[in-house]
Amino acid sequence: MLSCTPTIKPQFQKGVQDALLIRDQSLPPDSILSPPPPAELLDVTGIPRSCGLLTDWELEITEKYDATALVQGLAAQKFTAVAVLNAFRKRASIAQQLTNCITELLPEALEQAKAADDYIRKTGNTLGPLHGLPISLKEQIAVANHPTNAGFVAWVDHIVQRDANLVASLRSLGAIPFTRTNQPQSFMQLETSNNIYGVTVHPMNRSLTAGGSSGGETALMVLGGTPLGFGGDIGGSIRGPAALSGLWGFKPSVGRYSGAGVVVPWPGCDSISGTLGPFARSLRDIDLVQRAYSESRPWAEDPSLVPYPVAIHHAPAWNRPLRVGIMVNDGLFNPLPPVQLVLQDVTKKLEASPLIQVRPFEPLDHERAWQVISANYFEDGGAKIEEICAESGEELRPLTAWMIEECRKNEALVHQTIQGRKAARDEFRALYSAHWNAAGVDVVIAPVAPSTAPPPDTSRYWPYSAVWNLLDYPSIAFPASDMIGGYSKDLKGIPYNPKTAAETYAYSHYDPETAQHMPIGLQIIAKKWQDSECLAAAQVIERALKG
Amino acid sequence: MLSCTPTIKPQFQKGVQDALLIRDQSLPPDSILSPPPPAELLDVTGIPRSCGLLTDWELEITEKYDATALVQGLAAQKFTAVAVLNAFRKRASIAQQLTNCITELLPEALEQAKAADDYIRKTGNTLGPLHGLPISLKEQIAVANHPTNAGFVAWVDHIVQRDANLVASLRSLGAIPFTRTNQPQSFMQLETSNNIYGVTVHPMNRSLTAGGSSGGETALMVLGGTPLGFGGDIGGSIRGPAALSGLWGFKPSVGRYSGAGVVVPWPGCDSISGTLGPFARSLRDIDLVQRAYSESRPWAEDPSLVPYPVAIHHAPAWNRPLRVGIMVNDGLFNPLPPVQLVLQDVTKKLEASPLIQVRPFEPLDHERAWQVISANYFEDGGAKIEEICAESGEELRPLTAWMIEECRKNEALVHQTIQGRKAARDEFRALYSAHWNAAGVDVVIAPVAPSTAPPPDTSRYWPYSAVWNLLDYPSIAFPASDMIGGYSKDLKGIPYNPKTAAETYAYSHYDPETAQHMPIGLQIIAKKWQDSECLAAAQVIERALKG
Repeated sequence: MLSCTPTIKPQFQKGVQDALLIRDQSLPPDSILSPPPPAELLDVTGIPRSCGLLTDWELEITEKYDATALVQGLAAQKFTAVAVLNAFRKRASIAQQLTNCITELLPEALEQAKAADDYIRKTGNTLGPLHGLPISLKEQIAVANHPTNAGFVAWVDHIVQRDANLVASLRSLGAIPFTRTNQPQSFMQLETSNNIYGVTVHPMNRSLTAGGSSGGETALMVLGGTPLGFGGDIGGSIRGPAALSGLWGFKPSVGRYSGAGVVVPWPGCDSISGTLGPFARSLRDIDLVQRAYSESRPWAEDPSLVPYPVAIHHAPAWNRPLRVGIMVNDGLFNPLPPVQLVLQDVTKKLEASPLIQVRPFEPLDHERAWQVISANYFEDGGAKIEEICAESGEELRPLTAWMIEECRKNEALVHQTIQGRKAARDEFRALYSAHWNAAGVDVVIAPVAPSTAPPPDTSRYWPYSAVWNLLDYPSIAFPASDMIGGYSKDLKGIPYNPKTAAETYAYSHYDPETAQHMPIGLQIIAKKWQDSECLAAAQVIERALKG
Repeated sequence: MLSCTPTIKPQFQKGVQDALLIRDQSLPPDSILSPPPPAELLDVTGIPRSCGLLTDWELEITEKYDATALVQGLAAQKFTAVAVLNAFRKRASIAQQLTNCITELLPEALEQAKAADDYIRKTGNTLGPLHGLPISLKEQIAVANHPTNAGFVAWVDHIVQRDANLVASLRSLGAIPFTRTNQPQSFMQLETSNNIYGVTVHPMNRSLTAGGSSGGETALMVLGGTPLGFGGDIGGSIRGPAALSGLWGFKPSVGRYSGAGVVVPWPGCDSISGTLGPFARSLRDIDLVQRAYSESRPWAEDPSLVPYPVAIHHAPAWNRPLRVGIMVNDGLFNPLPPVQLVLQDVTKKLEASPLIQVRPFEPLDHERAWQVISANYFEDGGAKIEEICAESGEELRPLTAWMIEECRKNEALVHQTIQGRKAARDEFRALYSAHWNAAGVDVVIAPVAPSTAPPPDTSRYWPYSAVWNLLDYPSIAFPASDMIGGYSKDLKGIPYNPKTAAETYAYSHYDPETAQHMPIGLQIIAKKWQDSECLAAAQVIERALKG
């Protein structure tokens, strides 16, 4: 987890040390693991319970209550916001020591929790539908008066004056932003590694990546360190880590969540836009936050948003079986055995439901899709990332360098101008829309990633998630393997014959024994703007799988 | 009205001659003015009635019925689609001979009208909510199997295979696209002049421009040659000619009307996007077409659209007086006397209404707004326009050349990269949204143009209309001077002291005696995506003005 690379210029080294100090000093003294578990202990999910630092009540609150149950209890004054916050602060601190997942606990959260408690005690009313709920935020989502570095050493001490719009909305709903989570350098990685805070590892196996770019969020949530969190997704950065961690992660259409105040290297770069979105331990929590956020009318403050609410009850009734397309592979990369197996078992369960009509869904030229989206990510060919890194002397992380190279290669392939690359994007979107309509499906279930969590610095296959960013189709990752009771077979018994360089590369990092203990999620995709329909379909599918 | 410039390369001259032949041969033989009125006759609005070519029934149908009354009559089988179509074909032909407003009558419309009549006769049902309604279309909106040149000589014989999505939607609603209307070279003009068909002039004074870029539509409609039409607006091209002609013209938010199949010089150029929108002789006609188009669910076919309907009844009730901001000038250019006078008189009438609360609205740095939008129009600095013109040897029209120069100047001023110019755009949008919210208004009424229709080749002031394209706020032009019974004073009695170069230039082309006979429209602007609210506010304002 060493963070400071030796190349960092002296004038930036102090900033990095200060950032680490801010983080470490923010951890409650009564939450320090002493001694920490040995590095050889890979699965640390039992530590919060076994370490003895959390009371039974704290264990109960952080493990047995989802966000919906928490806001119900807080509104009923069964427990106080301060008590809930302190439980999550301690547990987040433990998670940090185990996986390096947070960048700081926010000290002001304590005052806010006290104010929430005072308010409800005096008035009998909640501050809003998320009254007293602790919420975690990916680091780039600015919090007023805190440095926000977006994973860049050069920005390590850049203090932001105003809350990001999302943070202000969450506060207005009564929620309490309480911790910020790690993200990668440049955020253009499906992992979580930077030269300030280092690498975030997977709590179920610390030799593996937590995924990314919102991997700090998921490592924290898997360890019970947050009831609800927010990340960002421009190519899979919410759905990827959610799928590798057995969590729900929702990537809405761009134009639903305000990105105002989120620190990015390239304002104005919108050939492909990312979006914020929530992580949760249950679908009802995703719906909770959607309903609440819609109530806050974020579009009044951010003119880039559409003024329409998103939540399950806003979806029109189907009045017939849900037509679910199953995309077993993307025509380029045959998923590794765990993904194949889970998708097969999920399909069988769905086929048994009278509420669902399963049909195959064929991908439409995802090779072209990847070329087009990667050619459109950087309008400056990645120059700004290199420039920001050069400013501090920090090295490009391996996956940052790989991504810049990949994008440049595809820029040259697709078109020499930004306008021409956008025309290719629009053309592909129109073709895919017609293809989807012809397939006659309401939603599609597909892999998010081709495998369970791989070792760090090897996540080089984006198309399963990124195609839906190119199309800007809403998509929700769901904990598929957990919902069907885990793998129905020994993965060692399932053969796999890699045929392409990408398959061979991923297979070389695949170990069936390791994978057997790791979850795999899938995603449910709906057409553009059908965010409510995506969530409503997820509810139907969840019932069929748990049924 | 001479079109062919001498510089056009020989191999393109035949194409131009053919285009003119197609147009002229499409005119019904019984609609030819012989002799045409003398060029010195400036106001030709009386000619359709006086020329003797139209029967009393045809005069009645084309003058006294708006689109709503026409579809009611067609649905009730009070008249046939063929009879209605023939009336408008003849009148459009007369309008063409008077103002040079169309590029062709579509011969296939006759078959479609017959089919509509057969259908309703046999089934008793309409083909849809626009059953049998003739509709005119700006030339760039592609019609299958016809050349679509978008005002460029080089494209004069480019045949398009498929209807634009809008055309397909209109057909599916029962409407009958029957004529195509003139537009300028490059469509980046607030007038209507190109080197194929020439210049479209104003039917109320043929020494003046009809406005543009959708000026073919408005010249045609003023002469009763179409009951409903469609144009496009990226800087005022719907609202401008509507305001100069006493018509309604609606520029919705981008993402409401499908632009798929509209021929433009630069696919992929979307730093600033234009949109299609309707022209009508009444607000209820605008609402008619909005309701019908929403019913056609255009978003199912075009993934760039939001899946939400737009019409008056979709606006939420205000349950309080409508808060109308009045913007008397943009802080840069004091409107000429006719505009000042109409805005004052409109304001007085609105102040007398108990349903309206009038308040001042101050513009926020429209100088910057113009810099930012013009810097963002061309992602290639206008190179593609020059290239297409060079291909055929045609000259840049004066206003095309002026616009390219203006955009290049402001590109240099705003930022050297496309990304940086878009960042400036986004920053301005956020500032204006906050400014609007702080002003506490539901809608704003403002000038569309600083004067009544000016002489050709002098329309060089875009900000009154273009600022709302930068912000992408929906806006509807309404026939303000007509609705309040014309000018309440002799314009000669109103002094004007030009202070800036732009004011001096416009004032040098201003003649109060000429202006006294020309209408002036204003626009009602709502915040982004509040398209239904914009129309609902227009209804409240219309009632207040008509008293």
